[in-house]
Amino acid sequence: MKYQFKITGSGYYLPPNIETSLDLSQKINKDVNWVLSRTGVEERRVSEVDVDQMGAIAAKDAIGSKPKPDLIINASGVPKQTIPDTSVFIQKELGYEGIPSFSVHSTCLSFITALNVAGSMINSKTYKNILIVSSDRGTRGRNFNEPESASLLGDAAAAIYLEASDNGKHGLIDFEMSSWPEGAELTQVKGGGTSLHPQDSITKDEDNLFSMNGPEVFKYSLRKVYNMISEILDRNNISKTDIDLLIPHQASGRGVDAYSKYGGFEKGQVMNIISKTGNCVAASIPLALALALENKKIIKDDLIFFVGTGAGLSIASAVVRL
Amino acid sequence: MKYQFKITGSGYYLPPNIETSLDLSQKINKDVNWVLSRTGVEERRVSEVDVDQMGAIAAKDAIGSKPKPDLIINASGVPKQTIPDTSVFIQKELGYEGIPSFSVHSTCLSFITALNVAGSMINSKTYKNILIVSSDRGTRGRNFNEPESASLLGDAAAAIYLEASDNGKHGLIDFEMSSWPEGAELTQVKGGGTSLHPQDSITKDEDNLFSMNGPEVFKYSLRKVYNMISEILDRNNISKTDIDLLIPHQASGRGVDAYSKYGGFEKGQVMNIISKTGNCVAASIPLALALALENKKIIKDDLIFFVGTGAGLSIASAVVRL
Repeated sequence: MKYQFKITGSGYYLPPNIETSLDLSQKINKDVNWVLSRTGVEERRVSEVDVDQMGAIAAKDAIGSKPKPDLIINASGVPKQTIPDTSVFIQKELGYEGIPSFSVHSTCLSFITALNVAGSMINSKTYKNILIVSSDRGTRGRNFNEPESASLLGDAAAAIYLEASDNGKHGLIDFEMSSWPEGAELTQVKGGGTSLHPQDSITKDEDNLFSMNGPEVFKYSLRKVYNMISEILDRNNISKTDIDLLIPHQASGRGVDAYSKYGGFEKGQVMNIISKTGNCVAASIPLALALALENKKIIKDDLIFFVGTGAGLSIASAVVRL
Repeated sequence: MKYQFKITGSGYYLPPNIETSLDLSQKINKDVNWVLSRTGVEERRVSEVDVDQMGAIAAKDAIGSKPKPDLIINASGVPKQTIPDTSVFIQKELGYEGIPSFSVHSTCLSFITALNVAGSMINSKTYKNILIVSSDRGTRGRNFNEPESASLLGDAAAAIYLEASDNGKHGLIDFEMSSWPEGAELTQVKGGGTSLHPQDSITKDEDNLFSMNGPEVFKYSLRKVYNMISEILDRNNISKTDIDLLIPHQASGRGVDAYSKYGGFEKGQVMNIISKTGNCVAASIPLALALALENKKIIKDDLIFFVGTGAGLSIASAVVRL
């Protein structure tokens, strides 16, 4: 066991406003069947409140009646604003003050990365109770002139509450991440920073919108993801059938299906929520976790394999005993 | 000793282009003496290359002939672009691939926060050699209609290379952070995220620029910073005179002076570089560290107290034995 901890709370927020792929198809001048076959997304949520409020709703569920956390990590893909970082605004919405808080950012992998950071900090007894919140409002950055990526994005927030554990049974068994800058241009929002500053006259509207070459991301990462999973399973003497649930980033319908189609997992082992939520950026993985816990698809002591690709291009995996 | 590690490399990049406060005073319609008396900044650097290139120059110096790091943490205040996160672009500039990389963000405190994260990860044997890079190009976000904050900002990058250590002597002795959302509005760049999206018609140009109420930040944080320092010293049985160098965030001339004027440290104990660099956002603290190391102001075994305030409003401190 790399880091001992227990996930003692989880919560999520799915905005009530549903946009079906039929609704969307009109905005992108495509047939609804084009959307369904390309992305696997039937509907997605569109939030009317911002990421801090979304995150706080999810966090309240995760915290429940437990003590206030002693660390808040925002692990989202896109911030509320440039500064301060979103963790502060989530803390504000939760009605707390004085709790250390910061953001961990690796786009769609932010939650897995934050889980590794939080696990390490609990392990080294720096913090006892850590709240991780992922909240993304990807629909704000859709480029309707790029119909495939615009069809994928949906809004959601999810949160987990981690507590120290010392029975040697629960926590993070293994973690791995690799980043490949060669693939940096495959998934981007080019604007919003110092490169194409919003005030620059050369910054085009589309620079501030999400762009992804899904098929290339898929091609580039398939073998790398497969190898990472195999290595982690091998070095921990875990077989694929030992995994109670594989929770992948919900990148695209095809991306999620690949874990059973090419990855050697049973379809029932792979958490698949993309048809009803779309790609919720960093919130996809914890949302899938929170839904699986709510539906009792997974229970205490189950073995979970988190995995995904994110802008970077980065790949990460985490094996957790619940 | 909370986390054992050694800082075995440091580097920095100060862009060659110097903007004096006389140059700047004309852009903000103020007398040069107004700038000097309000901010204590005589000159600042203005970078013509972006944060990833700046960061990579600093990182190369920090890495030197040592092995490539097994983790890259970008700990900057403002990113190159919204996604992917800047760590990937720094990795690209360094000519590496496959190294896990992500960003830690708590604005001006990102470096101290990342030091705590990295220390924890070295302590838990997840990584052995970690590169932390802070690179900020604050001059890109200056609002010349807000003369005080516009006078403060300067560009710089700095990096450190951390290695595992096990002699029980070197590393992070203590760390503390607290975030106070009540002060979130005192230092902001409101745009660049989901709240005031660059594409929104209501987003004004100034929303994308840096805004800080320096005097209020000072008033709000003075007592909190003082108390945090006192508590950390007390609980570690360290007296102020034991500290070889206090390295504060270079928030403003007045902010840096406060550590000797009100904080009980000798003037010579407080690293003060603001007159020549301005407030370099997250890069200020590691830049001050790298300069102090270069000038042999501090040497191996010295006791360093890092401290600062950042947008949030957050306060953090870290005590490190070099």
